[in-house]
Amino acid sequence: MHSLSDHSIYQREKNKIETYLSRLVNGRQPRILYSPVRYVLSSGGKRLRGVLVLLACEAVGGSGRKALHAAAAMEILHNFTLVHDDVMDDAEVRRNRPTVHLKWDQNVAILAGDELVAFAYKSLLKSKTPRMHAILRVFTDAFIQVCEGKGLDKEIESRSDVRLTDYLMMIGKKTARIIAAATEIGGLIGEGSKPQIRALRSFGFHLGTAFQIQDDLLDVSGSRARFGKNLGGDIARAKKTFLLLKAIEFTRGRDREFLRSLTPSNGQKYIDRVSSIYRRSGALGAAQRAVMFHSRKARESLFPLPDARAKDALASLAIGLVERQS
Amino acid sequence: MHSLSDHSIYQREKNKIETYLSRLVNGRQPRILYSPVRYVLSSGGKRLRGVLVLLACEAVGGSGRKALHAAAAMEILHNFTLVHDDVMDDAEVRRNRPTVHLKWDQNVAILAGDELVAFAYKSLLKSKTPRMHAILRVFTDAFIQVCEGKGLDKEIESRSDVRLTDYLMMIGKKTARIIAAATEIGGLIGEGSKPQIRALRSFGFHLGTAFQIQDDLLDVSGSRARFGKNLGGDIARAKKTFLLLKAIEFTRGRDREFLRSLTPSNGQKYIDRVSSIYRRSGALGAAQRAVMFHSRKARESLFPLPDARAKDALASLAIGLVERQS
Repeated sequence: MHSLSDHSIYQREKNKIETYLSRLVNGRQPRILYSPVRYVLSSGGKRLRGVLVLLACEAVGGSGRKALHAAAAMEILHNFTLVHDDVMDDAEVRRNRPTVHLKWDQNVAILAGDELVAFAYKSLLKSKTPRMHAILRVFTDAFIQVCEGKGLDKEIESRSDVRLTDYLMMIGKKTARIIAAATEIGGLIGEGSKPQIRALRSFGFHLGTAFQIQDDLLDVSGSRARFGKNLGGDIARAKKTFLLLKAIEFTRGRDREFLRSLTPSNGQKYIDRVSSIYRRSGALGAAQRAVMFHSRKARESLFPLPDARAKDALASLAIGLVERQS
Repeated sequence: MHSLSDHSIYQREKNKIETYLSRLVNGRQPRILYSPVRYVLSSGGKRLRGVLVLLACEAVGGSGRKALHAAAAMEILHNFTLVHDDVMDDAEVRRNRPTVHLKWDQNVAILAGDELVAFAYKSLLKSKTPRMHAILRVFTDAFIQVCEGKGLDKEIESRSDVRLTDYLMMIGKKTARIIAAATEIGGLIGEGSKPQIRALRSFGFHLGTAFQIQDDLLDVSGSRARFGKNLGGDIARAKKTFLLLKAIEFTRGRDREFLRSLTPSNGQKYIDRVSSIYRRSGALGAAQRAVMFHSRKARESLFPLPDARAKDALASLAIGLVERQS
């Protein structure tokens, strides 16, 4: 079993972020707001976005310590999106714990999410950097892209004529752009050159795309002990993933009709049948190839960066991603 | 009938903000996100916070044009709080139109609110100013205060032992601090001196406090055609306003017990009885005096500012406020 967080350098950077987040709102009132905020910030997760900020900063020769506020900011922004997503999806579990709106209530979850955004900016503003303005623009643009991606996601769920390009646009905005923002901001804090910043942004974008498609793949081929998620959950909810859209593209006749007829109310009983169509139609293989393609593109993007431990760590992240099982 | 927006200088500044907001998200996709965003931004309102940014900038000798992005940002942030407030209160009407979650749905309202925050920062970041960092800190702090104020509001609604000081703390965070941020940011963009910035912040804080208490007052003494609100609405919802808390403080025995027994389910039928207690207990008079006190404090704060049309406009805003009927 391979996981993103096996690497000791990853683990070390992750720990810095955990420590930072665990102290962020210490002693603040009112409890009704900061209890859920603390709960969210202490809920773990990969901290991928935060670690990427730190590694990207180091990869252009900057000191990771200078990037810690921004790393935390990216994580906080990401967690805000999860809290509001969970309200919108009425999800019950996140990272093996009850979601905020379930543990408290919906209004608390909306408010705690809003407060997380405010604290993301507050943390980001603590960074000591001559490039603050550029960093804030990248951060805010990523925030806008995430909202637009969620909007597209909602549109996609209600439309019947969705194509893979719509999906790729959606995950570009919802996932890849925020990961690209993480690496770009790390590079900016490290005061990298323009080509280096471009390289890091491209790396992040491909990594994020690979990451999302891999996420779709793990729904049918992952290990059962996935981080608070059930195998086949996407199929049960008839979610328009890379796999489903590719399988619709690759099939004809009865199979295609069947795939198009999936709904959140009938999906649960068809998990095995859909998985099997994914395999034999070639959709699964196509998704695996797409993950490998973007993983390779990500690694190739790193070319303009100086050779360094952080660069190697980024590259092995892109490899570890392809091999991750959870 | 006197209204805040009678003054031509106010109207002129307001129009600039309206024009700015009407163009802000032109041509952006997806529709599902930007239709509600456009709907909110075109819904009018006093634009008090935006106008205050412009006037404060001019009052320290700056050009109002430089402050327009920040003025819009304050308005957008304010509108975000309204959209999420309306979801949380399940309110049906805002500014005489259906609320976003009613016209679309709750998820759209949550998402549109989030996107408004992102656009508030995007607009703010367009300001050309050497004091960007300070401005962003004031803005972000106001955002945090608003969230904390909403949290306190929620705590207050569920507690039975609320005192007027809790209420004043709550409106300080929820209303006054964001108005103080508006005047402070205007002063920063106008590159005012430290004493001038302090003066503007103090002005905004007192104005905001007066404004909120006047809002509570208008619930029982305003004209019937209030901007999308019904007379006695606060009483019907048993809202813990300045009036209710002051009346509880001023009464004994049966009246006090009765006031304490008000709930959102029995409030509607007691509007007249509660209003009459407000009058005869002296709570109404106390609220009127509090509005006048903070209005005077606001005007006194303006002392360190150079004499100018904008300073006069700020002063008359503080006076107009005391006299407003809607």
